[in-house]
Amino acid sequence: MGDLIGNAVSGTLCWVPRAELERVRSAKGSRFERAALFADACRVNALYMIARAGSGHIGSSFSSLDLVSWLYLEELRGDAAANDVYFSSKGHDAPGLYAVMLGVGLLPFEKLHALRRLGGLPGHPDVGTPGIAFNTGSLGMGVSKAKGYALGRRRLGRAGRVYVMLGDGELQEGQIWESLVSAVNYGLDELTVIVDHNKLQSDRLVEQTSPLGDLVQKFRAFGLETTRIDGHDFGSIAAALEQARAVSGKPQLILADTVKGRGVSFMEHTALESDLSLYRFHSGAPDAASYTRAVEELLDRLVLGARSLGIEPLTLESTDRPALPPPASEPERLIPAYARALVQALERTPELVALDADLMIDTGQADARERFPERWFEFGIAEMDMVSVAGGMARSGLLPVCHSFACFLSTRANEHIYNNATERTKVVYVLSLAGLLPAGPGHSHQSVRDISALAAVPGLTLISPGSAAEVPAAFEWCVAGTDESSVLRLESVPWEVPYRVPAGYRLSQGVGVELRPGRDAVFIGYGPVLLSEAFRAAEALEREGLSVAVVNLPWLNRVDPDWFARTVIDRRHVFALDNHLTTGGQGQMLAATLARLGLEAPPQMHLCGVEGIPVCRTNRQVVSAHRLDAVCLAERVKVVLGAR
Amino acid sequence: MGDLIGNAVSGTLCWVPRAELERVRSAKGSRFERAALFADACRVNALYMIARAGSGHIGSSFSSLDLVSWLYLEELRGDAAANDVYFSSKGHDAPGLYAVMLGVGLLPFEKLHALRRLGGLPGHPDVGTPGIAFNTGSLGMGVSKAKGYALGRRRLGRAGRVYVMLGDGELQEGQIWESLVSAVNYGLDELTVIVDHNKLQSDRLVEQTSPLGDLVQKFRAFGLETTRIDGHDFGSIAAALEQARAVSGKPQLILADTVKGRGVSFMEHTALESDLSLYRFHSGAPDAASYTRAVEELLDRLVLGARSLGIEPLTLESTDRPALPPPASEPERLIPAYARALVQALERTPELVALDADLMIDTGQADARERFPERWFEFGIAEMDMVSVAGGMARSGLLPVCHSFACFLSTRANEHIYNNATERTKVVYVLSLAGLLPAGPGHSHQSVRDISALAAVPGLTLISPGSAAEVPAAFEWCVAGTDESSVLRLESVPWEVPYRVPAGYRLSQGVGVELRPGRDAVFIGYGPVLLSEAFRAAEALEREGLSVAVVNLPWLNRVDPDWFARTVIDRRHVFALDNHLTTGGQGQMLAATLARLGLEAPPQMHLCGVEGIPVCRTNRQVVSAHRLDAVCLAERVKVVLGAR
Repeated sequence: MGDLIGNAVSGTLCWVPRAELERVRSAKGSRFERAALFADACRVNALYMIARAGSGHIGSSFSSLDLVSWLYLEELRGDAAANDVYFSSKGHDAPGLYAVMLGVGLLPFEKLHALRRLGGLPGHPDVGTPGIAFNTGSLGMGVSKAKGYALGRRRLGRAGRVYVMLGDGELQEGQIWESLVSAVNYGLDELTVIVDHNKLQSDRLVEQTSPLGDLVQKFRAFGLETTRIDGHDFGSIAAALEQARAVSGKPQLILADTVKGRGVSFMEHTALESDLSLYRFHSGAPDAASYTRAVEELLDRLVLGARSLGIEPLTLESTDRPALPPPASEPERLIPAYARALVQALERTPELVALDADLMIDTGQADARERFPERWFEFGIAEMDMVSVAGGMARSGLLPVCHSFACFLSTRANEHIYNNATERTKVVYVLSLAGLLPAGPGHSHQSVRDISALAAVPGLTLISPGSAAEVPAAFEWCVAGTDESSVLRLESVPWEVPYRVPAGYRLSQGVGVELRPGRDAVFIGYGPVLLSEAFRAAEALEREGLSVAVVNLPWLNRVDPDWFARTVIDRRHVFALDNHLTTGGQGQMLAATLARLGLEAPPQMHLCGVEGIPVCRTNRQVVSAHRLDAVCLAERVKVVLGAR
Repeated sequence: MGDLIGNAVSGTLCWVPRAELERVRSAKGSRFERAALFADACRVNALYMIARAGSGHIGSSFSSLDLVSWLYLEELRGDAAANDVYFSSKGHDAPGLYAVMLGVGLLPFEKLHALRRLGGLPGHPDVGTPGIAFNTGSLGMGVSKAKGYALGRRRLGRAGRVYVMLGDGELQEGQIWESLVSAVNYGLDELTVIVDHNKLQSDRLVEQTSPLGDLVQKFRAFGLETTRIDGHDFGSIAAALEQARAVSGKPQLILADTVKGRGVSFMEHTALESDLSLYRFHSGAPDAASYTRAVEELLDRLVLGARSLGIEPLTLESTDRPALPPPASEPERLIPAYARALVQALERTPELVALDADLMIDTGQADARERFPERWFEFGIAEMDMVSVAGGMARSGLLPVCHSFACFLSTRANEHIYNNATERTKVVYVLSLAGLLPAGPGHSHQSVRDISALAAVPGLTLISPGSAAEVPAAFEWCVAGTDESSVLRLESVPWEVPYRVPAGYRLSQGVGVELRPGRDAVFIGYGPVLLSEAFRAAEALEREGLSVAVVNLPWLNRVDPDWFARTVIDRRHVFALDNHLTTGGQGQMLAATLARLGLEAPPQMHLCGVEGIPVCRTNRQVVSAHRLDAVCLAERVKVVLGAR
């Protein structure tokens, strides 16, 4: 094993193979020691999966791994699919859960090597994976889903318990409390809710974000049979689950105190300094050095664990660390550009305030918070609340800017955004992580429905900048260029952009800008990802004698009919690009505009957008799978125009 | 006054005029007796407004009237708009609130005669009305809005307290609990939350719907300074509000036990039999006899109250009860047709279950519940929970059918419907009260964005029947005609329908049916309201020599391109009708389809739908205001085709 560690330094990743895990499971001796060794072996495997995938959630996987190991080793009865069911509502802990499911033979072991890969295991749990009960990743739905499953089985005369794991940041979502009421009223004693109470959420400590107060008191007040335990003490876990099984007439709640990153000393949140804004192991892969140190610690514990259980030391397998794709030479990054624009807007606009729902870092607010702490408001994972608070602030005279991921803000706060709009106040909504990419976290996070969900809100204008250079102008338009509310839609993934907006270009509502001239047809779209693909497609087509323009139209639900008529009139075909589902995207608006223009001999429209549920693979694979990469776009044009 | 009552029987409505209310307010003597008399006078006026408007919420207005009267008479300091602010989150109690605001001079008194009328007072509170802080009617947003207002004023260095009234059914909405967490964390001691704890919600008792358990314990567990009082005892109200003012560092909650319909013996819920499904005074106007009995009781109390306060008896004014518009001879009603179809589907399909969010009666489930109580599930005002539960039930093997109003189900559970769709299970969503009408309750209830909000959900097909006859076929398609999920969109308002679907017509996905032939142009739409208007427009146009077809296309987000091409190819103009905003409606889909067809000389598309925030007037006024009535539609066609 010394060798293995040496190798790891130089780029080796290792895992505990299936036979060794089975050897642990069949060992005689203390159930608790066996579970501890199994959980540590699963930590090695979860870490392997994340390191190999290049992304994933270590902290949350490790904090819940002792609980999940115990459940699968000792608690779940019958065939997991047909009888007792466990699922994780927070979903971030998928690598840990997969490691356990692989370890007990519920998943084909070769999937260990395919986290977030084509045909592999998705970033958040998905029912396409055998043994996964529900698609999670959208927080707060777990108790409701569990309840539905339990009620369904009662109705169908089937037995079995349902265990659902919640994250503690997730408890800020109102749906959790909404769902507990009828769980109690329906007397669902087959339902055990476990809270992985690791005290950290996405950015910081729960206590620093939006403290939840006395949780035991809250759950008891909501009528659940509530216990608090050490979630790393197998004796306590066993006892709490046994007690839960004995409760009659009401659901049970186990508040399990855990440590984020448990099992690797420097990944444990308790080992950090008091300012935890630096906790580095919430999401993303460890760097090589951290990986090696972590494995070293875990392997040491595997040795001790095997000895204590009275079995031979475990033998690991290893492989070279896969080469990461070379980074784009100078990728376009919209979020840092937005972060700067936000600070500038705060400097210039005294009434502007920023609101966050526990995504300060990913949505580019960290500098703003640092510079203007008194104008920065945190609400935790509570998008509905944040948006309605923004409505209240706007009525008081402030200009609120709400931040979250596009997938959550456009849908969970949908009625709330409309309600604000009916008050005719002004609110800016900044939707990050918009579009198909990043594809790693799975379709709960792939926001391909946000334009459709918001485009019809009266007085709400949606803008999607096509480059970092366009971000400050677009945000400035939202802040000072309109009296109405607006959405700034940001594609978060860094992307190599082959074009520049022409010098002197200024935003004008509903009007686009030509990035590349062309005679035969025109691509119209928005955002760096698809504009870049279209630009490269146009370059390739030019080499084949076809002249195709590329136009950036950052306005998603507004188009100037005159500009549009001028842009398309002399071309035979218009290819509209949507980093969004075709239904309800910009392309559908443009096509409808064309039909309303009543031109004598209009060009034909072709909508190039996402169809169906987005797939979950690497970023480039996903763009290709949806036939939106440069090659596919060029192909589509050739088929339509007739190849020369 | 004896005369007045006599007149009332024969069709008179009466009110307490402004001068008399001022006489009460300026009377010497006990503050409590003065408030009681004022509140009863406001009951007379609220009842007048509702009777005159023909609709409104009596029960909820009366239960909160003592609290609201005390707040406006004695508690709110400074100018109500600039300093202390009160608003109602439930919003149903608007007539009571208006009566008080009229009584203290905050609204022009002539508005008393214009509830739910053009230029008058909207059915739910709206910021367009002076002194109204927020648009309510969408439940659960109140604490968030109040919090935003308080935080905004702190930021702007302005003082003043914020009082928000919640309904108790509203406490089932998760956003309430979500919003309390940060209200406590921000230490908002200027915020007083009052719960009008009248124990009834839309259909039945809270206790019969989704019991909320020990509310005092819950609010205390959430960290609020909590008191419980008799909400009709002015001494207790005064003391609780005084105590609230003294609390430092945290928001306060006053749980006020009240009686729904308080002040009129036979309207009080406590006077009813134990089965409260018959409580008749939640919404809607009283019949003439009930009105008269109620006024008689209230006037008797006004006499006693004036005597006890030592002032002359109040003099009332009266007017003839306005004639109601004659009912349509045989209006089309989709909800009863759906109610029958649901029972039949339950009989035929053993795995089908119905889920409700406290709108059993209005969404047509009462018979189903009666017949199949074990297959009917109530979740209270908890749409997110209901939809995620449906997802869980579907995964267990049931076929869940979710019910609510279109405005709530499509938006508040938007992410949840998408999440279910990504699991590829089958769920049916029945969205009632869809479209512009009824317009009385205000734009929180006018669902003109539900198609856009849901059309893009992968695998979700939206259908809107054009007549009662089409309802069973459409629901049967949802239940048995597809493996995917679907939305049945029901226009709830009774409407006189001048057409019949042709004999032998069968639903076929994406294909419409001609209701009336025509050569020059075609109206394409869905649902009884606009199809009827278009049909009448076509009849009128025929008299002027223009031949316009009318086509019913019940498929909102699916169209068969071949059928569509055949339908439009020989016509010069297509008028697409949307009982929905133009953006994201059926018309936009059709226009986009036309642009994609690439016809040589395509017809021109004209989208006839709602633009902007819906207006709130009588049903016919609203259809006309949005230029969607037969006259406006005919006019649009004539302008385009050129009048002959």
